[in-house]
Amino acid sequence: MTKFMDVHRGMVGITAEQLHEAHDADLAIQAEEGVTFEQAWADPEDGVVYCLSEAPNAEAVQRIHQRSGHPADEIHPVPLVV
Amino acid sequence: MTKFMDVHRGMVGITAEQLHEAHDADLAIQAEEGVTFEQAWADPEDGVVYCLSEAPNAEAVQRIHQRSGHPADEIHPVPLVV
Repeated sequence: MTKFMDVHRGMVGITAEQLHEAHDADLAIQAEEGVTFEQAWADPEDGVVYCLSEAPNAEAVQRIHQRSGHPADEIHPVPLVV
Repeated sequence: MTKFMDVHRGMVGITAEQLHEAHDADLAIQAEEGVTFEQAWADPEDGVVYCLSEAPNAEAVQRIHQRSGHPADEIHPVPLVV
């Protein structure tokens, strides 16, 4: 399992409720791909969301995000954490 | 105080030791700007580092990163967290 940071753009004006709903939609199906979504951070002004997960690979992260209706624009493995 | 996610690019090949050294350099002086660096995640292959902090403003985050020798390429306030 590897940690991944994925990035969603074009989310200008995202609200706390929308972020929670999106995260909950991921959590509801994440086990089907062996993914654990840990945290997400949103900048509503620039419309960027960062999402941290642990997963077998980037494709598994993307499949969950796609099925939840918010595919990621970038998915980076982040094996180094401090 | 607000949470910020900043992004450093061009860090291809960064090692765990280099990430720790960079983070420690920030921690050593962060109090001078009222910043608290919380975590950082690195993708050595694409050369991207994500850095989470709590700070009075983005300029304070950047001043610490600049003085530590690794200015950020982007700094986003992330008031929404899940």
